[in-house]
Amino acid sequence: MDQGSGDGVEVLLFDVFGTVVDWRTSLQRWFQRFGRANNFQADWPALVDNWRAAYEPSMARVRQGERPYVTLDALHAESLDALLANYGLTGLLESDRREMARAWRWLDPWPDTVAGLTRLKKNYLIGTLSNGGLGLLADMAKFAGLPWDVVLSADLFRSYKPDPKVYLGAAELLARPTSALMLVAAHNYDLASARSHGYRTAFIARPTEYGPQQKKDFGPEDAWDFSVSSLEELAGKLGA
Amino acid sequence: MDQGSGDGVEVLLFDVFGTVVDWRTSLQRWFQRFGRANNFQADWPALVDNWRAAYEPSMARVRQGERPYVTLDALHAESLDALLANYGLTGLLESDRREMARAWRWLDPWPDTVAGLTRLKKNYLIGTLSNGGLGLLADMAKFAGLPWDVVLSADLFRSYKPDPKVYLGAAELLARPTSALMLVAAHNYDLASARSHGYRTAFIARPTEYGPQQKKDFGPEDAWDFSVSSLEELAGKLGA
Repeated sequence: MDQGSGDGVEVLLFDVFGTVVDWRTSLQRWFQRFGRANNFQADWPALVDNWRAAYEPSMARVRQGERPYVTLDALHAESLDALLANYGLTGLLESDRREMARAWRWLDPWPDTVAGLTRLKKNYLIGTLSNGGLGLLADMAKFAGLPWDVVLSADLFRSYKPDPKVYLGAAELLARPTSALMLVAAHNYDLASARSHGYRTAFIARPTEYGPQQKKDFGPEDAWDFSVSSLEELAGKLGA
Repeated sequence: MDQGSGDGVEVLLFDVFGTVVDWRTSLQRWFQRFGRANNFQADWPALVDNWRAAYEPSMARVRQGERPYVTLDALHAESLDALLANYGLTGLLESDRREMARAWRWLDPWPDTVAGLTRLKKNYLIGTLSNGGLGLLADMAKFAGLPWDVVLSADLFRSYKPDPKVYLGAAELLARPTSALMLVAAHNYDLASARSHGYRTAFIARPTEYGPQQKKDFGPEDAWDFSVSSLEELAGKLGA
């Protein structure tokens, strides 16, 4: 049940990991290929899930000022290094570890993503608003065929969502009031923060994002302006 | 005569005003239309040339720390306000002045721009590196059909080219060494700065950018890696 409209919205900003790309299945496949090619064996699905589990706490330390800002690439590399021994992966080359840490670039879109974005792009400026770094997001867009008009990332503001700097900074760079911006995300916490700063909001259900581990975000937890199950459905609702 | 190669280059960054869009002819046409629609009369070509002449000094004051950072949109609005009376344009509404100051968004590309960028985009990540603000550049890209992968602007670094922060900051955001970046520009000063920070360089001749006022940048003034007269020629040289 939609609670709002797209009136006055000029820019659609998208969360990326989980919202437009399927990181879990993509990383599992990437590690399986990487393992076969290099003759490494490990429980790759478990490694992927535990790597992802380290993501939010690692950003929280930056957001709370417990450590200076570092990029998500650096956080990914650190948290991977801390996990490898648990999976019997010892004595890897630095170049192997670097290649693994960069795997977050090579993620596949959900089946509706490219078609939905392509339709939405006709009527709106479309862009990312992600905790991924700008370089990571640009490489991913090239790999996955994501037709962004602009790539905005938390590293432009040297923090991480849900730091207000990220939502407000994006509006300032786009030279628009937050009321002209809509955040599209699969995570209720992100929409709640965006709305608190004046954004319009669209929830998209990605109920398989975390696989069997998924515990939340099966549906909208607040009266967001829109609630959809694909980006094509959102395009239809926005008349694009 | 080309002096270098594109080996190792992954990203092409483009200066925008003059390099990819023809600001002078576009602004003259825009003001003529705006004047007819609103019944304002003035020597629009002279106003455009004098407005542009205020551009570099206004940025220099920011770059040199004589005033805090403000966006190019704000600088454009200030310098326009200072000029209007000289052209008999008094008593304009605030909304008219704001619309005029935003005219830098609605610029036409040079005839080779879109075809050249489209070819280059197949082999490279392509983006802007302009003193225009991110919102201005994004609106211009939508208007002119410029197919950027990323929009990078001096306002990400709260300064203006040729401040080193702009060239070095772009490389940091793209998570690449400057040697993986090539600047494409119609202005020798910009290429000289980029090269001093490790960028590869491509000069593109835009000999009519300033019309009869053009005094420089008719050709390459140093041994840039490439020197071309269209972006399609550059695409050919880079095998794209």
